[in-house]
Amino acid sequence: MTKQKISTRISESKKEKPASEQLEFGRVFTDHMFVMDYKESKGWHDPRIVPYQPITLDPASIVFHYGQTVFEGLKAYETKQGEVQLFRPEKNMQRLNRSNDRMCIPRIDEAFALEAINQLVHLDREWVPNAPGTSLYIRPFIISTEPYLGVAPSKQYQFIVILSPVGAYYKEGINPIRIAVENEFVRAVKGGTGEAKTAGNYASSLKAQEIVSEQGFAQVLWLDGLEKKYIEEVGSMNVFFKISGEVVTPALNGSILEGVTRNSVIQLLNHWDVPVTERKISMDEVYQAYKDGLLEEAFGAGTAAVISPIGELSWNGESLVINESQTGDISKKLYDTLTGIQYGSVSDPFGWTVKVNE
Amino acid sequence: MTKQKISTRISESKKEKPASEQLEFGRVFTDHMFVMDYKESKGWHDPRIVPYQPITLDPASIVFHYGQTVFEGLKAYETKQGEVQLFRPEKNMQRLNRSNDRMCIPRIDEAFALEAINQLVHLDREWVPNAPGTSLYIRPFIISTEPYLGVAPSKQYQFIVILSPVGAYYKEGINPIRIAVENEFVRAVKGGTGEAKTAGNYASSLKAQEIVSEQGFAQVLWLDGLEKKYIEEVGSMNVFFKISGEVVTPALNGSILEGVTRNSVIQLLNHWDVPVTERKISMDEVYQAYKDGLLEEAFGAGTAAVISPIGELSWNGESLVINESQTGDISKKLYDTLTGIQYGSVSDPFGWTVKVNE
Repeated sequence: MTKQKISTRISESKKEKPASEQLEFGRVFTDHMFVMDYKESKGWHDPRIVPYQPITLDPASIVFHYGQTVFEGLKAYETKQGEVQLFRPEKNMQRLNRSNDRMCIPRIDEAFALEAINQLVHLDREWVPNAPGTSLYIRPFIISTEPYLGVAPSKQYQFIVILSPVGAYYKEGINPIRIAVENEFVRAVKGGTGEAKTAGNYASSLKAQEIVSEQGFAQVLWLDGLEKKYIEEVGSMNVFFKISGEVVTPALNGSILEGVTRNSVIQLLNHWDVPVTERKISMDEVYQAYKDGLLEEAFGAGTAAVISPIGELSWNGESLVINESQTGDISKKLYDTLTGIQYGSVSDPFGWTVKVNE
Repeated sequence: MTKQKISTRISESKKEKPASEQLEFGRVFTDHMFVMDYKESKGWHDPRIVPYQPITLDPASIVFHYGQTVFEGLKAYETKQGEVQLFRPEKNMQRLNRSNDRMCIPRIDEAFALEAINQLVHLDREWVPNAPGTSLYIRPFIISTEPYLGVAPSKQYQFIVILSPVGAYYKEGINPIRIAVENEFVRAVKGGTGEAKTAGNYASSLKAQEIVSEQGFAQVLWLDGLEKKYIEEVGSMNVFFKISGEVVTPALNGSILEGVTRNSVIQLLNHWDVPVTERKISMDEVYQAYKDGLLEEAFGAGTAAVISPIGELSWNGESLVINESQTGDISKKLYDTLTGIQYGSVSDPFGWTVKVNE
């Protein structure tokens, strides 16, 4: 994978930008996108920035039938000084390649992909919103484009990056959510694709999410697929519990996504000398801690919402109200620190942010 | 879902048809395709037959990111009398709707979809190949087309049917294959999407398939995701074992695909008074039967290969050679009868075939 020059074709018309205050998540896209092709004979080739435009594919393309695809999600933030920066983007590219390995998709050159993202964000710089809590969501993804109905890895792919200005996940800042523990449906199991960021994991989550949404819950909490006993993730976030002063999060076991925010939370807690442990944790243990008055906080961690306090857990018909449905101290401190680093208002002792430049 | 008229736009140029003898699987497509759209406000609408053409989608379309999609596979056969017929197509449409339910996709009108398939196959009638063992593969599929990066069911879909003339799965007729029992990777688990015909199931199978292919095996045999003990499927087929005169196949348990060929095999065996049982069956049991000299036959059953005798099973480093790697009597009789009914050379006591007509 030699470094290649990225060609750029500028859009002749600029789309109207929505007001920063009215942004939703993932509905509006910028003027340009990055595209790169893969063929067995040529490897990854023809990297280009082009006007945002439809993808045209043969109806027999493997992605439509067998879902051989991976994606990533990260954000660009505007600082008070008017600079644009990314948060640990190299972690996303590393994970993209781990997902590629699992899904039989050829690896990308991580440094080159970061350079492509840098150039794309720089070109659409004016799309980075600046209202509080807003950012430019970056969605790199790879689709299998060979027109073939056999069940086999594709011999052709496209790597694409699109950008979407997004609003604050919670309009009024950080806000505790209600979560339902899922006892019927399973997100992933060891030996499956749970630790890869691939389409099928999300497709399989829709049904459970639809059912609990109708019951007024924001997300489901997934239990392990084997015993439906151990906690895995919440919605599309990793999950943490503070029990008797110790923060516990499920250990990476092959079916849990290795979140960048998860990793950052663990590093921050270590930095602050707050005890944090990655291990198996059962719903029974969380319930017992709750009954004993030892469950102090619970929160989800992910790119979209950063930190999402859990105010209520519904399990087997019982409602566990956590920290009186208020945002806990650790949740608040993590949220403030992480968003502070991301927006450049708090010092970045770990070197997590990367400036976007020409 | 009121019946709607299907508009037809005939292709201005006809593609060259490959020789029947040289057909592969799923690489060549006919002159036309069927398309129908879905919007929340209009339901399924605008059914049309159009020239085979690329699909043009926004890069943010849900199918590319979260794989919300379902598909089916069935075949049209030319009889000696020069008629074209389908094999139990209503079963495929029923299963498509069951898959739709699991994947939060709006149901289609099954009778209308069958009429669309009928009209499409009739229009591309000349593409139905007639060399022995060849057929016209029919691939109905639904993709989620809403441009939205939130993880939620799409509000827009396309239902598409494409056709592909395909060769005999085994060029020299029925032929025993070598299978490796998969101990590391998992295809599906109860509570997941294993019984739905959805993209993610196939994407997750690629890695295991790639590894065993390099070792010279045709397919993997999947064990259950919980204990890796009970037999589920082989490759993308259902699986049967004949032990001491009784045919056994894994019971439908929520993670196994309900195959149309599987169902037909069970009906035929019942019709012939051959004992057949749907139940849990472990790899230990199969191994013990093999050791005791009681494992008489093993075969896969699916639309692509119809009946695929298993000549060898590799498990934990040991090789189980079944029926001296020869096609067994029951496998042969099932293959001959099923293909005979499909091609109209054997009487169809069950009314399984449906003629394609104007």
